[in-house]
Amino acid sequence: MKSPSATSPILGIDLGGTKIEISCVRLNGRELARKRIPTRPEDGPEKGLERILNTAGEVLNTARLATVELAAVGLSIPGPWDHQAGTFLKLPNLSSWSGFPVRHYLEDRFSIPIYMDNDANAAALAEWKFGAGRGCSDLIYLTMSTGIGGGLILDGRLYRGRNFNAGEVGHQVIVPGGAMCGCGLPGHLEGLCSGSGLARRLRQTVTAENSAMWQMAGGDPANLSAEILIAAVRRGDALANEFFQQTLDELSTGLANIIFILNPEMIILGTIVAKNPDLYLEPLNRLVRRKVWDVFTSDLRIVAAQLVDRIGLFAPLALVLDALDLEPEEVNT
Amino acid sequence: MKSPSATSPILGIDLGGTKIEISCVRLNGRELARKRIPTRPEDGPEKGLERILNTAGEVLNTARLATVELAAVGLSIPGPWDHQAGTFLKLPNLSSWSGFPVRHYLEDRFSIPIYMDNDANAAALAEWKFGAGRGCSDLIYLTMSTGIGGGLILDGRLYRGRNFNAGEVGHQVIVPGGAMCGCGLPGHLEGLCSGSGLARRLRQTVTAENSAMWQMAGGDPANLSAEILIAAVRRGDALANEFFQQTLDELSTGLANIIFILNPEMIILGTIVAKNPDLYLEPLNRLVRRKVWDVFTSDLRIVAAQLVDRIGLFAPLALVLDALDLEPEEVNT
Repeated sequence: MKSPSATSPILGIDLGGTKIEISCVRLNGRELARKRIPTRPEDGPEKGLERILNTAGEVLNTARLATVELAAVGLSIPGPWDHQAGTFLKLPNLSSWSGFPVRHYLEDRFSIPIYMDNDANAAALAEWKFGAGRGCSDLIYLTMSTGIGGGLILDGRLYRGRNFNAGEVGHQVIVPGGAMCGCGLPGHLEGLCSGSGLARRLRQTVTAENSAMWQMAGGDPANLSAEILIAAVRRGDALANEFFQQTLDELSTGLANIIFILNPEMIILGTIVAKNPDLYLEPLNRLVRRKVWDVFTSDLRIVAAQLVDRIGLFAPLALVLDALDLEPEEVNT
Repeated sequence: MKSPSATSPILGIDLGGTKIEISCVRLNGRELARKRIPTRPEDGPEKGLERILNTAGEVLNTARLATVELAAVGLSIPGPWDHQAGTFLKLPNLSSWSGFPVRHYLEDRFSIPIYMDNDANAAALAEWKFGAGRGCSDLIYLTMSTGIGGGLILDGRLYRGRNFNAGEVGHQVIVPGGAMCGCGLPGHLEGLCSGSGLARRLRQTVTAENSAMWQMAGGDPANLSAEILIAAVRRGDALANEFFQQTLDELSTGLANIIFILNPEMIILGTIVAKNPDLYLEPLNRLVRRKVWDVFTSDLRIVAAQLVDRIGLFAPLALVLDALDLEPEEVNT
């Protein structure tokens, strides 16, 4: 492989619990083609990877590129992993893939470097290189969807930790002995404030009598979700508002803990927050400032992610740029 | 100043809330002289610094050195500070020093570089360069005395954060709305498990009837302390044991939170733990392993600090070595 230039194309794979986005993009950020397919976790990894490869073929066709022209593959995965083996660890939404040698499988098929990391690390790099965090040296990215993950840019680089699984900020304890998290441990921020945590709490509380959320869920508690909670808050539903205030309080405690430990310049909140910045940002900024010392907030900004719907394109690209030690400035020509 | 060599001497000042240790030591770690004086916070910073300078004169006399021969001053301080101004922020035990331009004062007197940082960062560097953490890339140091501070060595360097105050792991919330910490915020690890936190909780509970700790404190609740708690645990006092188990549980939650966020290779526990490793280390290792995922503990070691009584010498020295970007290996000749 010749040394990559600004126009070298890469293949990006953003593998989530429900959908997979496959893209072809140049290192300077220029999109050539992309396509989304459903994950279908029940199919298992071999069928899933076969479908990924087929879709990658289509994407490369659209981009009028051959595999041999690719500089690398960027692979974003939805949770903790074994860096040595290139396998996924236990993922509640993708348990059938646990232990399957995903990186080796792709290396065999592509014969080019596969740069792999979890989605929160990939998104942290993407927001840092292309989004809200440009120019920051110390930033924390939080993804808040089904789970709550984190990526840490510290001293101007992604901090991965001893086993490449640092940044699991969603698994700090907020309520000792509290509700069980999807990971099987009690009281975690993720178990309380993630999309799945909120849905579970709503199912325990919402009835036809006490909230409009019942009707919004079509009378089926299984439909209750963070999205319905947010919509009900916007409508002025009292129970939804009570829930939401509690979420803000718990979330701000989690952010305060992170701030005391890491003293960041910026916290970037993705997904739910990025789609509802008017509801989250002002109260979170206010609550956090009550929960930490002034020295930590003089420079601190708590902001919404900017890439949101484009994160599936930029996250795998950012992994490749990071691995090749290239800045977007260097390639964006 | 000529470029420092392995035998260049430095002046070390380890300024604590109750005592100050002033040392003269070569960059290779060879001690030349040292002396301890009480801090006397009530005297304020000008008198305190005058006494520090006088004692430094005595120490240099003993070492048969002139100020002009010193390569630098290492200054370890007991809490958060303003890096720009070189001043202390609010320190419960040294409030009279708040805002006084300590670094400028010393720069004026010595005309050599003053390298300053908080005691937990300095101790983290010292344990990393000279103690339990040698050879680690990712370690967390926790000092557990009057307060609970932390120092983070991440990716092979001290992580200081945006405002140089990262590592305040003692101020994570463990019990929402729980006991007030010395910093004025509720439920912090420090407010619960530090020496002062433990003493406060003992005062609220211990009576002549329910524990031997009452007599051990001479019947005066003001004398209750972490040291008395530990001694009573060793004697088999039931209330002391109950307290101690609760402390271990809270402390292990705090460590688990840090592990999820930073995925370290090693956690080094200083002060109280380092003096009582038989009581703390086995249960903490066991409890932490129940509270985090296996991927985080496969390589993890939770150990006692090694420098303990020599930390006052090595902490300021480590600050100078870090600032000059020198490794002990390079100077230890």
